[in-house]
Amino acid sequence: MPRIDLNADVGEGFGAWAMGADAELLALVTSANVACGFHAGDPAVMDRTVGLAVRAGVALGAHPGHADLRGFGRRPIQAAPEDIERDVLYQVGALQAFARAHGTRVLHVKPHGALYNQAAEDETVARAIVRGVARAGRELILVGLASTEPMRRAAQAEGLRFAAEAFADRRYNAAGTLQSRREPGSVLTDPVQAAAQAVKIATEGRVIATDGREITLQADTLCLHGDNPAAVANAAAVRRALEAVGVAVQALAG
Amino acid sequence: MPRIDLNADVGEGFGAWAMGADAELLALVTSANVACGFHAGDPAVMDRTVGLAVRAGVALGAHPGHADLRGFGRRPIQAAPEDIERDVLYQVGALQAFARAHGTRVLHVKPHGALYNQAAEDETVARAIVRGVARAGRELILVGLASTEPMRRAAQAEGLRFAAEAFADRRYNAAGTLQSRREPGSVLTDPVQAAAQAVKIATEGRVIATDGREITLQADTLCLHGDNPAAVANAAAVRRALEAVGVAVQALAG
Amino acid sequence: MPRIDLNADVGEGFGAWAMGADAELLALVTSANVACGFHAGDPAVMDRTVGLAVRAGVALGAHPGHADLRGFGRRPIQAAPEDIERDVLYQVGALQAFARAHGTRVLHVKPHGALYNQAAEDETVARAIVRGVARAGRELILVGLASTEPMRRAAQAEGLRFAAEAFADRRYNAAGTLQSRREPGSVLTDPVQAAAQAVKIATEGRVIATDGREITLQADTLCLHGDNPAAVANAAAVRRALEAVGVAVQALAG
Amino acid sequence: MPRIDLNADVGEGFGAWAMGADAELLALVTSANVACGFHAGDPAVMDRTVGLAVRAGVALGAHPGHADLRGFGRRPIQAAPEDIERDVLYQVGALQAFARAHGTRVLHVKPHGALYNQAAEDETVARAIVRGVARAGRELILVGLASTEPMRRAAQAEGLRFAAEAFADRRYNAAGTLQSRREPGSVLTDPVQAAAQAVKIATEGRVIATDGREITLQADTLCLHGDNPAAVANAAAVRRALEAVGVAVQALAG
Repeated sequence: MPRIDLNADVGEGFGAWAMGADAELLALVTSANVACGFHAGDPAVMDRTVGLAVRAGVALGAHPGHADLRGFGRRPIQAAPEDIERDVLYQVGALQAFARAHGTRVLHVKPHGALYNQAAEDETVARAIVRGVARAGRELILVGLASTEPMRRAAQAEGLRFAAEAFADRRYNAAGTLQSRREPGSVLTDPVQAAAQAVKIATEGRVIATDGREITLQADTLCLHGDNPAAVANAAAVRRALEAVGVAVQALAG
Repeated sequence: MPRIDLNADVGEGFGAWAMGADAELLALVTSANVACGFHAGDPAVMDRTVGLAVRAGVALGAHPGHADLRGFGRRPIQAAPEDIERDVLYQVGALQAFARAHGTRVLHVKPHGALYNQAAEDETVARAIVRGVARAGRELILVGLASTEPMRRAAQAEGLRFAAEAFADRRYNAAGTLQSRREPGSVLTDPVQAAAQAVKIATEGRVIATDGREITLQADTLCLHGDNPAAVANAAAVRRALEAVGVAVQALAG
Repeated sequence: MPRIDLNADVGEGFGAWAMGADAELLALVTSANVACGFHAGDPAVMDRTVGLAVRAGVALGAHPGHADLRGFGRRPIQAAPEDIERDVLYQVGALQAFARAHGTRVLHVKPHGALYNQAAEDETVARAIVRGVARAGRELILVGLASTEPMRRAAQAEGLRFAAEAFADRRYNAAGTLQSRREPGSVLTDPVQAAAQAVKIATEGRVIATDGREITLQADTLCLHGDNPAAVANAAAVRRALEAVGVAVQALAG
Repeated sequence: MPRIDLNADVGEGFGAWAMGADAELLALVTSANVACGFHAGDPAVMDRTVGLAVRAGVALGAHPGHADLRGFGRRPIQAAPEDIERDVLYQVGALQAFARAHGTRVLHVKPHGALYNQAAEDETVARAIVRGVARAGRELILVGLASTEPMRRAAQAEGLRFAAEAFADRRYNAAGTLQSRREPGSVLTDPVQAAAQAVKIATEGRVIATDGREITLQADTLCLHGDNPAAVANAAAVRRALEAVGVAVQALAG
């Protein structure tokens, strides 16, 4: 029986500013990636979000990003590898304290935004992240892009477990990379299409690329977005479809 | 044989900005209070500072402050108690990760600047800090002002160990509070005077107040400043004097 | 014919985070208070907001606050008066540049949140703000609480024009101060009640206090909130009611 | 009689952290580039620094950078061009307010650190900066690297005056670019060598590159560093040498 994890980015408010439909998403996913204060999230948001994740029975992960509240961690920053390593260690460590205070622990780490994208292309960045994760705990699972090599290789070199992530609602180029969000149609807004892509990835390990060809896409976890009501509807459709075809939806450490 | 801990605030640089004579101070003290990124310190500074503390054989403590880089944590901020609790938990958690990565652990927590002073006067603030510390680890020792009650009482109410802090280089009012830095003579700049006050506190549990009377001042730890070369000379004189009269200078957990 | 200004706080998003119904509010008010980047707002938000205000034909004001993104400027910070003065000058100056770039100018300054409340009670804070405003431009109008003296007095001492602000949707104590938001009923959520209070203030210079007595409340401007759809409905009701009874709704400099 | 401006980056402290020998440098240069709060500087530092520059009779310039206190503006950030434009407008506007308050005005704008370097290579960044400067004031002079084209071209396209900057204490590659700081010998630490290079640039418009050949380097202003006592000695030597050979050392607008 095929199985897959569903993850979502949560806890992305800051101070007086809210973001995302965390409660709805946490009812749909099996893993939560919690922002750690550098690109979003603050100690109050983190405490509440970890509490929500625990009550929802969802596996807890850290979602460290660049120190860039202004840019929401989406702007590539050429930070020194040693600084990336230490920023990751700091952020994961802070979340681990909230996890312990809630009687649980951090199971995985998924870099956020530009840091994730830089690591998907640049092995120096990937290795810096992996060193930070390994220093925070060798049992932690690194979540990274399924379709490129740097994060997978960096995790393997360090002896960390790697979980490959795919996207139900994003189109893939023939090379396995994500089609740029700037191109029309790159984000699937139709829940039926997103659900179909999720099922194909989970059951066949394949996806239909922009040129119509099928490509291999082995994924351990699917990312569900929830930044608007339509996105939550998408996420719900994905979960229902996966369960309908007999895919076991369960957390990575399950 | 009387004994006392000597502590210093270290790791108070940020990014390109340096502060303090950490290396010199770490050679003189038995406990280090490491800034955690909110009022000073950043992940790179913390990593280096924890490494220095470990190599110096000094006990490691967290030095959490208000989220106020601009004010160096010295400006009283009326934060909600829940936010203070979570800010403390976050900062201690981040430092605990660096401690684990260096093969050591955080032994104590001493609030910084305005947070320390607010807690010395306001039991609501003291309790919020103590809750954050307790959530980070019930084995942690809370360091607070020897001469007022709120922090001591808050720690006792929560079941945390409390360590009373006194100052070798500050004058005390007859009520046991610190004379304001704005008054002339409130800071002892003469190493001989500072050393004499340290010895009197450590051996007699007493200090001579501004009105000339002796008052009781039971302290577990003395704070040594190192923000300028004269301060380091003061610190060195204190240490030498304590050892010369047979006081055992050792960390709190010793 | 009585007249009054209607003002609203706008431009309170930051980076990826949105806040407030700016477009709806700018269609209802005659003055806009634009956040300047310290408690909310960033250069991109400011540029867009100034553009919206210009297109809406609304008078432009600066809304400086404490440097406290995390607390949205709502946490009292005991900053040095010189720092408050310079923070105000900096923030007003930044907004003035956007105003000039849009072919307009900043007409008034209304402190935000805790800074406003501290200035309404503490003449030292009020004077610091006024010095900052005066250094930014002696033609600027200072907007402050109608019902206490510190800001009015500070403006007069410096020779700045003062505009007294009242609230259509907040209850007043018999002493003329605002009833705490923590007390039930302190915020008027019924548009009819808010409109009635606005009309009474604008036409009679009086308001009914919490104890049922009428008190004097001379106001030059009324603040309209827009942090939720109900608040915008309130604001619209206030404007319609004022115009229905023949109050001229126009900007301070009109 | 040849002439040249000498400029220095000043006001690079932040809060409790100091940096640089501003007073010494301001006695040697004819133009000051003042940090504006994004990578360094805060309103208090800016106010003091503008006051120092005015008293020293030095021309005042803005030194805007990326919003990156942590990285001191030295880390390349891929910000959207619109955001760069607005960040520059905001920072220059804030400094203009301090300038007016001190009875002077901002004469030039020199981007800082990574923003300067990105603009020296990438015309999109250069144009974004120039738009921000032009919106802040069409009379402002843009200071940029003498030896590459993007900033010069961007300024010309917008109709802004451009001032070409060279470095007395950095080695140049044969292509006219700066030798990387990571290569040994790239920074001239010998005051005699730095002074000789300054004289050659100012009097001949030429410099000897790393391969020994002379290349053309037309410069309107020379940057003097002051981050350590040796750097100040270098700066003093440069000034003395220029004056000794009859170069008129004067501000850009002189």
